[in-house]
Amino acid sequence: MVDHFTYKVSATSGLARRGEISTPKGTIQTPAFMPVGTAATVKGMLPETVRETGADILLGNTYHLMLRPGAERVASLGGLHKFMNWDKPILTDSGGFQVMSLSKLRKITEEGVKFQSHIDGSSYNLTPERSMEIQALLGSDIQMAFDECTPFPATEKQAETSMELSMRWAKRSKDAFAKYSADGQAIFGIVQGGVYEHLRIRSAEALREIEFPGYAVGGLAVGEGQQAMFDTLDFTMPHLPNDKPRYLMGVGTPLDLVGAVERGVDMFDCVMPTRSGRHGQAFTFDGKVNLKNAQFKDDPAPLDEHSSCSAMRDYSKAYLHHLVRSGELLASMLVSWANIHFYQELMSAMRLAIEEDRFAEFAAEFRTRYQASK
Amino acid sequence: MVDHFTYKVSATSGLARRGEISTPKGTIQTPAFMPVGTAATVKGMLPETVRETGADILLGNTYHLMLRPGAERVASLGGLHKFMNWDKPILTDSGGFQVMSLSKLRKITEEGVKFQSHIDGSSYNLTPERSMEIQALLGSDIQMAFDECTPFPATEKQAETSMELSMRWAKRSKDAFAKYSADGQAIFGIVQGGVYEHLRIRSAEALREIEFPGYAVGGLAVGEGQQAMFDTLDFTMPHLPNDKPRYLMGVGTPLDLVGAVERGVDMFDCVMPTRSGRHGQAFTFDGKVNLKNAQFKDDPAPLDEHSSCSAMRDYSKAYLHHLVRSGELLASMLVSWANIHFYQELMSAMRLAIEEDRFAEFAAEFRTRYQASK
Repeated sequence: MVDHFTYKVSATSGLARRGEISTPKGTIQTPAFMPVGTAATVKGMLPETVRETGADILLGNTYHLMLRPGAERVASLGGLHKFMNWDKPILTDSGGFQVMSLSKLRKITEEGVKFQSHIDGSSYNLTPERSMEIQALLGSDIQMAFDECTPFPATEKQAETSMELSMRWAKRSKDAFAKYSADGQAIFGIVQGGVYEHLRIRSAEALREIEFPGYAVGGLAVGEGQQAMFDTLDFTMPHLPNDKPRYLMGVGTPLDLVGAVERGVDMFDCVMPTRSGRHGQAFTFDGKVNLKNAQFKDDPAPLDEHSSCSAMRDYSKAYLHHLVRSGELLASMLVSWANIHFYQELMSAMRLAIEEDRFAEFAAEFRTRYQASK
Repeated sequence: MVDHFTYKVSATSGLARRGEISTPKGTIQTPAFMPVGTAATVKGMLPETVRETGADILLGNTYHLMLRPGAERVASLGGLHKFMNWDKPILTDSGGFQVMSLSKLRKITEEGVKFQSHIDGSSYNLTPERSMEIQALLGSDIQMAFDECTPFPATEKQAETSMELSMRWAKRSKDAFAKYSADGQAIFGIVQGGVYEHLRIRSAEALREIEFPGYAVGGLAVGEGQQAMFDTLDFTMPHLPNDKPRYLMGVGTPLDLVGAVERGVDMFDCVMPTRSGRHGQAFTFDGKVNLKNAQFKDDPAPLDEHSSCSAMRDYSKAYLHHLVRSGELLASMLVSWANIHFYQELMSAMRLAIEEDRFAEFAAEFRTRYQASK
């Protein structure tokens, strides 16, 4: 354990980086995938099960938690770690993305965002200062600067105006973080700028000017498509410092993760493994499996008979199909578990491939096998 | 392990009995509570978690399983134990109760029951012979005679006609069991007769005439109230053999269980702990806790800080309240788990009290404490 936030790269393979983030709450092996614990729970999973899959860090959502149960309440109950029975690192987002996409009647000004809760319609005001205060109340180990997630599509002018606002908010976020945060916690800045190269570069440079212990790429996986996302990473990543972790927010599919690690990304979060799990869709190295499909009703084989994960090994596809068709809670539980396990196994395989400097071969083999069954 | 079905009483305290049922799949400590795995899953729980609570045996529902995924399919996949990843004993009901209460357009004749599936409306025919065949296909360790669950209220004449039909079906069930069953499996007869003493006695005598390795009391907890249920047990139990297990079907609340054990019952099943769990209602030795209630929103205390069960010990009531209010899957998972644990803990405490011949004191203390907080 350390008493402050550090990051070091231990190996590279092409642009892919193998590293380690140290925090007082524990070490995060990178590239890392963070399961999403939206409302202080990774949906359908016990925290110890999430941990057993190999997850070093979870993501919590500021927007959801500020509305329910409320940041002050979580703080008075001992913080988010204690509240949700997870003693490893937690990253919280800033609330910016969800405010834009979930809340009603939002109004953006220089000061921040006024919005109405999607739960009960009550009014809230979220600013860079309040977002950082909330994240401090939650007690997360990595906190995100408050930004506006630029919608897609956006004209160059819209993307520029939005990015510039986010950069001013980034500075205010860092100042507020300095006021509210505890030792060992870190704040990441978020690069915006849509799919426009010169805006992304300006954004990255503005954030480096402010100086953050980590940098995220935001505003992607919002409809632009995988190639545009990869292109944006290609021209953005060279402008981020090599000695700081890089986090691609809200991404993605297994193929997205492999392509992004290949481009030097260190951290990811996505609801996909658990959301797909609740819909009976399992991820495997041989591609996606829609367990609802009638072809599995008599299939005695598990998702992976050699897996170290009970959900993948100990239940036949026929049983999982039955549970999905019957709308049983255990369907969501087992398939979410299997998917989080798969995502962690994929990250672990990528980390090993980087250590052994064979990431390009790994990526090529993974793509071929994953897509073969389609 | 044994190769056949045996039951022996090791201690008594008043009418309460401490015993052990041995089957080739494992030993069942009695008095025993069987969690209900309706559709081949105890709702919201992993089978290993159910086992860890101390459950020696599960109940599976013939009606649900014959409709989906189908008994022949379960058999072709290796039987119910393998299908649901539970290698300990399983008891299956006969389907009679659910056919009466869940299916549409049911028609009862001497032969059996014709009905339509509540899932897709397709037609089925369930007879004593088919019920036993299905239970054999599922491969359950304890199988129940096919009966008509007499509705409540029923006139004496209705209860008599219904009971007599069930007794003829009991004989046919035993004959069919002899044809279909495997070594070490057992069939229980079911006493019917409503709340009428002379009918219950005639039913018990009819079943003893046929001879079963175990006897159930059916047709209770259907609206007659706790006192009528206890009265029925009082006049029925003396007519059941002492050297065979006695199973009170579909019961019940913690107070029901204590009162029934006090009257010599050895086995129970009920959906209450898991159904209540899905509704945010927790059982504790200090009574029921409605976690949805706003009084818990800031309560840092867990359900039981000294519990051996993580669900009761590691999560505050404030957190459980938050999960329930947020409609999170983890709410159902944790509270169902806590409740199944509580039911098993209660059975374990009753078994110890019988061994130490202090059941009356235990029951009195339990009732006082459980009801004090109401």
